[in-house]
Amino acid sequence: MGRIICAGLGPGAQDLMSLRSARAIGNARQIAYFRKPGRKGMARMIVEGMLHPEAAEHAMEYPVTTELPFASPEYRALLADFYDLWADRLAALAAAQDVVVLCEGDPFFYGSFMHLHARLQDRVPIEIIPGITGMSGCWTATGLPVTWGDDVLTVLPATLPEAELARRLADSDAAVIMKIGRNLPRLRAALSRAGRLEDAWLCIKGTMEGQRVLPLTEAGPEECPYFATVILHGNGRRPMREVRS
Amino acid sequence: MGRIICAGLGPGAQDLMSLRSARAIGNARQIAYFRKPGRKGMARMIVEGMLHPEAAEHAMEYPVTTELPFASPEYRALLADFYDLWADRLAALAAAQDVVVLCEGDPFFYGSFMHLHARLQDRVPIEIIPGITGMSGCWTATGLPVTWGDDVLTVLPATLPEAELARRLADSDAAVIMKIGRNLPRLRAALSRAGRLEDAWLCIKGTMEGQRVLPLTEAGPEECPYFATVILHGNGRRPMREVRS
Repeated sequence: MGRIICAGLGPGAQDLMSLRSARAIGNARQIAYFRKPGRKGMARMIVEGMLHPEAAEHAMEYPVTTELPFASPEYRALLADFYDLWADRLAALAAAQDVVVLCEGDPFFYGSFMHLHARLQDRVPIEIIPGITGMSGCWTATGLPVTWGDDVLTVLPATLPEAELARRLADSDAAVIMKIGRNLPRLRAALSRAGRLEDAWLCIKGTMEGQRVLPLTEAGPEECPYFATVILHGNGRRPMREVRS
Repeated sequence: MGRIICAGLGPGAQDLMSLRSARAIGNARQIAYFRKPGRKGMARMIVEGMLHPEAAEHAMEYPVTTELPFASPEYRALLADFYDLWADRLAALAAAQDVVVLCEGDPFFYGSFMHLHARLQDRVPIEIIPGITGMSGCWTATGLPVTWGDDVLTVLPATLPEAELARRLADSDAAVIMKIGRNLPRLRAALSRAGRLEDAWLCIKGTMEGQRVLPLTEAGPEECPYFATVILHGNGRRPMREVRS
């Protein structure tokens, strides 16, 4: 009986994955990864040149859903069937040998693998190898610490309503905002209401070829894909208490 | 002219550092790391067996400060002098060749290196290699995703006042609380006020020998060092908008 090993790949540059993930990937005879139909897939691109010559590849291609609203029952049913199918296939493969599932970033931090994890955790031994998050690749690219001292950090999806975004951005020392894309106008408005638009940095393709890091105020809407990240750096809140061990 | 390369080491297990950090560490002829006097130092322990045979080691030993209140001017002056001294020494070394500074976790995420970074950034070329955060090692160890869907994640130091902790814990889907130690009673009270004590997990020595993961309600105060982490998992807030690209 094999295991399902979910290997975190980190923020994008191949050499930012962990030694443990690299070893698991190089040894694997069964490799699976998500991708959109017609694409090579970011996860697969990150591991280019690392796979074992005898590795069998399993591209888990998302169903085409552009016609369906994201929150509709039809969309959800289609995705649920897709995850059910691949959970069954991976479990069958793992009955014979280890299967490595590639996962961009850090698997347990907003990772797509968790939809398989929820379906497999009681059926197959699972090992998760953490990874450097995409947001860490982005704040490192800005050249400034994101948090120090007693800073509070908030991680937010830009999909939230403007008033909630503004409230949370005003209430945190440091912040990371993800899922930008077409949510950018609402995010800009929220940053402005929170008095923090001037402090915001935009990072696109952090650690990868074509990386762009710039003040958000200098970015045009056409430059902002869904997977871009906006960073607000903390200023190093002073420790409030003298309690250390 | 060399560079100062700050190599993120990740959460503790040696093979969870990145390929890039491992290469920088193995090639370095000048290696520096923080430690307490009389200790080997966690950063140095993580890289055991990886250093080049000709590497010169520079242990940056924190001044002994147990007699001084953490927030006192005397404590701050002593630390500032310490960082000034080592910034000068590292800059002098880097005039001849690259210097690798070891940094547990992710350097720009609550890392000690930033005190040197602030003093060196206009004097010496600096490269930062990100790392897997300690908190990621901990949430991976719990065996459950920390965030999915549109969850909001808040990262908090347990040094904050109880009322502020309680307010922020009640207002976030997922949370990570750091700097526990003697702050544990206040944190417990805050979790209880927020109605979330039963959901909290404690992780000690995440990814390292002696790792312990348990519900916080089952942990005694003696089990909770300063560098332990408390995790509240998100439940997968549904996306509010249908905006994706």
